[in-house]
Amino acid sequence: MIAVTAGDPAGIGPEITLKALQSFDTESFAVYCSRDVIEKAMDIPGVTRRRVNVLNEDMSNAVAGDINIVDVGSLKADSFVPGQCSAECASAAYSWVEMAVRDSQRGLVSVIATAPVNKVSLRMAGIPYTGHTEMFAYLTGVNDPLTMFQVDNMRVFFLSRHVSLLEAIRMVTYERLMDYIPRCIRELDRLGIEGTLAVAALNPHAGDGGQFGTEERIIERAVCDSRKAGLDVAGPIGADSVFHQALCGKYSAVLSLYHDQGHIAAKTYDFNRTVSLTLSMNVLRVSVDHGTAFDIAWKGLADETGMKETLRLALVHSS
Amino acid sequence: MIAVTAGDPAGIGPEITLKALQSFDTESFAVYCSRDVIEKAMDIPGVTRRRVNVLNEDMSNAVAGDINIVDVGSLKADSFVPGQCSAECASAAYSWVEMAVRDSQRGLVSVIATAPVNKVSLRMAGIPYTGHTEMFAYLTGVNDPLTMFQVDNMRVFFLSRHVSLLEAIRMVTYERLMDYIPRCIRELDRLGIEGTLAVAALNPHAGDGGQFGTEERIIERAVCDSRKAGLDVAGPIGADSVFHQALCGKYSAVLSLYHDQGHIAAKTYDFNRTVSLTLSMNVLRVSVDHGTAFDIAWKGLADETGMKETLRLALVHSS
Repeated sequence: MIAVTAGDPAGIGPEITLKALQSFDTESFAVYCSRDVIEKAMDIPGVTRRRVNVLNEDMSNAVAGDINIVDVGSLKADSFVPGQCSAECASAAYSWVEMAVRDSQRGLVSVIATAPVNKVSLRMAGIPYTGHTEMFAYLTGVNDPLTMFQVDNMRVFFLSRHVSLLEAIRMVTYERLMDYIPRCIRELDRLGIEGTLAVAALNPHAGDGGQFGTEERIIERAVCDSRKAGLDVAGPIGADSVFHQALCGKYSAVLSLYHDQGHIAAKTYDFNRTVSLTLSMNVLRVSVDHGTAFDIAWKGLADETGMKETLRLALVHSS
Repeated sequence: MIAVTAGDPAGIGPEITLKALQSFDTESFAVYCSRDVIEKAMDIPGVTRRRVNVLNEDMSNAVAGDINIVDVGSLKADSFVPGQCSAECASAAYSWVEMAVRDSQRGLVSVIATAPVNKVSLRMAGIPYTGHTEMFAYLTGVNDPLTMFQVDNMRVFFLSRHVSLLEAIRMVTYERLMDYIPRCIRELDRLGIEGTLAVAALNPHAGDGGQFGTEERIIERAVCDSRKAGLDVAGPIGADSVFHQALCGKYSAVLSLYHDQGHIAAKTYDFNRTVSLTLSMNVLRVSVDHGTAFDIAWKGLADETGMKETLRLALVHSS
């Protein structure tokens, strides 16, 4: 089964979850939410009413065409205001993720698709994680899970993420590359994805032979030593062409060297269909890469494209 | 008239020029090349043979449907080998650009569309410019012409270009921004493009309130002071969304802060259709953003998509 956590209920999570599920005719998705919230979310314009089927302990009663739910907690839809931060909503959202991870540990769930949670609400609830990645790290006991973006044929890893660009440049070290390259390749293997991992360059035109920056020498050495160790990796490849080449199928994935390098590529190419995967855990997490959009919550205005793509990738990787 | 310089004749320039012209039924394009090269290029597979019409001094004899040429120099097609660097080819390509700029100064030409030249061949010919931008700077007497990329609705300026990423960060100064912001807006005005110029952020999530990097404070100050001076500018906007928003029409253009920031956006979005514009000169230059592709020259394998888009933009801006 694939767990789908509904996200912060005051956000667009319940709406995009239900809208996106309309595109799939399978009994493989189990929505982790409270029954009352799901029932009420059926009234959102654009959501088609379907039967809510509460799953039993072993999920054997799932029915294709129903909204199959794991009914967690007792949050009532009239106990919160759409679009408003609240500790109660964050706690509920967290409990749904917690239960989904537990079910993965029981072997019932192989992939967890997550709708967005809200950072501010999490803080109000005293939950000490800024987002899903940190929650999953804690709940699965994995220190530093790998994030990968996917949109169409392009997969992107990140050598660093939430640090300044200056700090990101400092983090382009031989040691860090020699840690990340094999980890990325291992995770691609686990996903069944073959081909060459490309390491992006840091400087324009990969430094043009040292004319603009010399960090490429470090990358060259790491790529060379990784290849000697039998790993299928190439680079440094100029960042203005490596993502395009990945889209064309030349590379299995790109290891980008800083947050925006990979983010600009994925999100400019297709903002709505960029899916984030959290890897190196026993369970695979897939996720939309947008927020709770409190300003349009429960109004029928939310675009479910990203969630649909997330569920599609969850299905691909659940088998 | 729009001048179209055929680029290094040993490259794909003549082929993509002729192929791209097939999509336009107008007498507005004048190809700057030698007649013999154009006649021979008609034999390249995929090129449709058309009548070559040599233009007179005032170009009054241009005919829609013909290949209207300004016959410059006497380079023979059998005097060079396709795909090979040569001083002769670079000299010819340079003379075509030189003549086109001269004709713009005589008021005959308002836009120059350029097919690619080859850096190595230019060096062999002793021509002291690494590319078109430097040639145009010299020939028009403009010190630091502005480069702008365009693909669909997205226009991108560059605060710096061929410097290391580290140096590019150092160049994000209040003074430089206060120089570039009004220049970008002036050039957008000249092109007749209205709306807000967005300045991209340097750090992930625009530094998230100073958590990852503080350069955004400099950008904020420059944007604020520019607005006080009456300029329509916004920012810093997180680089993972600003290009997407520009594509959606929210901004007239994006001022990117380093080479790859803007290049990754444009080229990942649409590698082949990215057009480069050189601004702040008396003549507008538009150009494909790819090279001479010597490996596939004169074989009928070159994709003319970029050149077609270049000619389309030249037409838009010639009136």
